[in-house]
Amino acid sequence: MANYTNEEILKLPRDFRTNLINSLSGFKSPLLVGTSNLAGQQNLSLFSSVFHLGANPPLMGMIVRPDTVERHTLSNILETGVYTLNHLPASYVMAVHQTSARYPREASEFDATHLTPHLIKGFAAPAVAEASLRIGLALREKLDLLANGTHLLIGEVQWLEVNDEDLLTPSGNILLNSTPAVVGLDNYYTTNHTFRLTYAKPESTVAIHDNNITREA
Amino acid sequence: MANYTNEEILKLPRDFRTNLINSLSGFKSPLLVGTSNLAGQQNLSLFSSVFHLGANPPLMGMIVRPDTVERHTLSNILETGVYTLNHLPASYVMAVHQTSARYPREASEFDATHLTPHLIKGFAAPAVAEASLRIGLALREKLDLLANGTHLLIGEVQWLEVNDEDLLTPSGNILLNSTPAVVGLDNYYTTNHTFRLTYAKPESTVAIHDNNITREA
Repeated sequence: MANYTNEEILKLPRDFRTNLINSLSGFKSPLLVGTSNLAGQQNLSLFSSVFHLGANPPLMGMIVRPDTVERHTLSNILETGVYTLNHLPASYVMAVHQTSARYPREASEFDATHLTPHLIKGFAAPAVAEASLRIGLALREKLDLLANGTHLLIGEVQWLEVNDEDLLTPSGNILLNSTPAVVGLDNYYTTNHTFRLTYAKPESTVAIHDNNITREA
Repeated sequence: MANYTNEEILKLPRDFRTNLINSLSGFKSPLLVGTSNLAGQQNLSLFSSVFHLGANPPLMGMIVRPDTVERHTLSNILETGVYTLNHLPASYVMAVHQTSARYPREASEFDATHLTPHLIKGFAAPAVAEASLRIGLALREKLDLLANGTHLLIGEVQWLEVNDEDLLTPSGNILLNSTPAVVGLDNYYTTNHTFRLTYAKPESTVAIHDNNITREA
């Protein structure tokens, strides 16, 4: 067993600690966030701390650290009030990871990664044409976390597009086995859908759902 | 292509909307949160909205909705100030999902699921002996989100244990391919580590890292 106390964590070499602590929350989806400033300069950046907040209204949370390349994304969202989240197929994982480079503000990550902007009429942020799932959000709340100056952005879903409708099951679930998962900053995983489980109740044991769709994408 | 606007999302049947919107953030790790009240009554509950906030100090965020079974977890954390996060191997996925049932407060999910409490001296919250990775946290901040009354708990890592040290790579990354991923409320996936990618820079293209550890757990 490998174990560390808080004091030991604080004394670790910086890169080791960064990798270790970034691993703790486990699997995430590497998402491309598409934004634009008011002058129309487009930006794409890799975010993986995105989470569900509620279905009605449809709200999603996203963590932004101001001391990274993510600052272009943050300033664009504050300018226009909107942003997109894009799930790309596993075959694009190198391009997705490349967007985490510290490009200058005037550079477009679309050009650098050969990804294609996908524009929605009347919506100021670009999505990604190659994405399996695209979501357009409007900023509803920005919270500054006292603990370390990180920002939490809360967005309301304005529209969503599932590029291949076979990925959407009759129950409303979206199959994401064609997209990668990431742990920490740079460890990528492929995924396979195994099953959907039934709603858990105290008086019975969960089982594989009758509506157990495992279609491959 | 399947697409929905905000207005269409709000008119969807409730279960379909819940599944659809819960799917949007993509892959998560299904984590068991271990807590205890001051009387020593232990609780285990499934959470999947857990995310990295910072490595120094080591901070993690967790979303808690007050109107669900998660309320036992929240009241216990507020009583004792501590909680554990536990990543279980894929072979325990049914037990993990079962802890999301609405057990009465006096029931122990450890008993109901035949999982074993793992106690750390001087730490009031139980961990799970069967876990591959266990993390002990102390509550640092609780934020109430105006948007829908959801709570954000920010915890600082007090200790962590990687049960099999082969899962910890020389770079500090933790290999999680033995643990499941989940999308939405109940769709489980197996995972395989494919590669670690290099740090992205504008002037070069990302590649597979030299330290590309893909050991199976």
